[in-house]
Amino acid sequence: MADDRPRRLAALVDLLVARNLDGLLVTSLPNVRYLTGFSGTNALLLVSRRTVLLLTDFRYETQSAEECGDVALLRIERTSLWTGLWEALEEMTDVEILAFESAHLVHKDFERILQNGGRWRWRPETDLVESLRERKTADEVAWIRTAADIGGRALRRTLEAVRAGMSELQVAGLLEKHLRDEGSEAHPFPPIIASGPRTALPHARASARAIAPDEFLLLDFGATAGGYCSDITRVVVVGRASPRQREVYDAVLEANTAAREGIHAGMKGREGDALARRVLDGRGLGDWFGHGLGHGLGLEVHEAPRLSKAVDTLLPEGAVVTIEPGAYLPEWGGVRIEDDVYLSAAGAELLTNIPRELTELA
Amino acid sequence: MADDRPRRLAALVDLLVARNLDGLLVTSLPNVRYLTGFSGTNALLLVSRRTVLLLTDFRYETQSAEECGDVALLRIERTSLWTGLWEALEEMTDVEILAFESAHLVHKDFERILQNGGRWRWRPETDLVESLRERKTADEVAWIRTAADIGGRALRRTLEAVRAGMSELQVAGLLEKHLRDEGSEAHPFPPIIASGPRTALPHARASARAIAPDEFLLLDFGATAGGYCSDITRVVVVGRASPRQREVYDAVLEANTAAREGIHAGMKGREGDALARRVLDGRGLGDWFGHGLGHGLGLEVHEAPRLSKAVDTLLPEGAVVTIEPGAYLPEWGGVRIEDDVYLSAAGAELLTNIPRELTELA
Repeated sequence: MADDRPRRLAALVDLLVARNLDGLLVTSLPNVRYLTGFSGTNALLLVSRRTVLLLTDFRYETQSAEECGDVALLRIERTSLWTGLWEALEEMTDVEILAFESAHLVHKDFERILQNGGRWRWRPETDLVESLRERKTADEVAWIRTAADIGGRALRRTLEAVRAGMSELQVAGLLEKHLRDEGSEAHPFPPIIASGPRTALPHARASARAIAPDEFLLLDFGATAGGYCSDITRVVVVGRASPRQREVYDAVLEANTAAREGIHAGMKGREGDALARRVLDGRGLGDWFGHGLGHGLGLEVHEAPRLSKAVDTLLPEGAVVTIEPGAYLPEWGGVRIEDDVYLSAAGAELLTNIPRELTELA
Repeated sequence: MADDRPRRLAALVDLLVARNLDGLLVTSLPNVRYLTGFSGTNALLLVSRRTVLLLTDFRYETQSAEECGDVALLRIERTSLWTGLWEALEEMTDVEILAFESAHLVHKDFERILQNGGRWRWRPETDLVESLRERKTADEVAWIRTAADIGGRALRRTLEAVRAGMSELQVAGLLEKHLRDEGSEAHPFPPIIASGPRTALPHARASARAIAPDEFLLLDFGATAGGYCSDITRVVVVGRASPRQREVYDAVLEANTAAREGIHAGMKGREGDALARRVLDGRGLGDWFGHGLGHGLGLEVHEAPRLSKAVDTLLPEGAVVTIEPGAYLPEWGGVRIEDDVYLSAAGAELLTNIPRELTELA
């Protein structure tokens, strides 16, 4: 696999040059990982036209050297990373105008810049690294596909064991175990496992509630491979489906299919969203589809681009996005069917090859 | 169980009054949960002397009503929470000087305040709600004890199944499953499962590495009950311990014991840290104990107070903290033994009743 980090860093420097910036202080950890490979939980990264410097703490001394290789200079700090940053900046003669990540720097750290960074000129910027991350390479897509495959296998093994009477938490535990056994490096988010009326809560956490016969069971979860996430939702009936369950399920599936088949790079985010919303509106369920159609997927489980009613920007070639229409009827229940697609030049390519027909668990 | 939220909100208002503040904009989600019970992932909370207003989005309409009850007024926003905030603030006549949470507001949102919040006077504050959270009530301690018990049972069941040849990821999956089966609501952090030389990385993630016979296996994990976290580390030998393994283990255990037995409210953070560091220094391992002794534990797995070499503040009565000395010998391996203790008026009370003698798995 090609090492893509030098190209990413060069592309970032191009963005800096175009904005008359001498450097960027990266405080978003996924952005740090994208540029350097470092996957620890504490770092500052300084990228200038000449230098790539990663500051982290004692706990990551070995790991940072292994992960960054020759891509970045390393400083291991025993106290504050910020103290190290000021020392390092003093020694850099090519840096005067510096950007920081406005969406990823808390006010308290912004005050550090105001107090200790007065020798440099600081500019807030947003989405510099994120804009690079939006367009995936073949290697990145392959990782997401691997994460989707892991998710699909773990789901199948989990559903083989699910029975009425089990709690949502037990299902979560089974699913987590199978995800690990299949090789998932991390859970990108806590699995949402909801049953019965709780499926109407789009962001329910797993609870101690026992699944009753013939209820909906919603599983929204992901896997991680090479740092990249998949994001999958399926709804099954634990028993026999009622006509109403089938009707709502079929409507959401039709919306999912329409969006999967119609989406392509170059559409506006709201045009993608409309592919599914139109179907649900036609079935009288539009009012119960309260979130957007989907979101970008990569090192983070929610990243650019977004697909929703208010988004006028275009879906870029190379993006990987979720397609996740849903309908949530308060106190009755809800259905969401979520797939991951790659918006290639040749058209949309499905990454989640997981059955979608309504499953009735015996 | 008593509803402690009115007392917490009243205590916060007392802090506001003492600082001549009319209100606080709470953007830290654990702080929102502490004050209102709301456990969703998107919220703004405004607390003034007269009003408690929670803003969240469509996904949490049902959940926020269930969780907050009468404690807060609710606004469900279809677009930006911030738009709703400005509208709500316009209607509040008792608010002129407002604080925001400097450690939990990103610069981008700070700019919203500068741009749209000009009608009010804004003050950065830190640790207002966090200072309340530091002192636990009996109910909170009971939840942490429950989370510690869940962790202990899940660990025992996991170790019964661990064998040489299993991968770290498989162990992580087993542990996660048992944590869920025992009722853990969430994994407070991804379990750190490290084997052999990887135990020298204090923050290793579980990897695909297979455990070899007679190697160390380190498990650092937690459970969640009622929103409250436990944090536990144990190291076992998967086979027979070598004299060197036993020597390092015994030294860390002695440091753990000294700290558990010596710690009490009213000590400085660095005095607590020294209880363990002194032992490891005496065994020639002090240089390999590169982190602090521990940290507060509650709704978050890392919260105030801190125990480390540089901390001069006193450990408050009512705090729950971890005791986690370690020694990490690069490329050879490491040991950490972590317990959770409640610093009550009557002395330190151990919450993690989990065996500590060196376990050799057959």
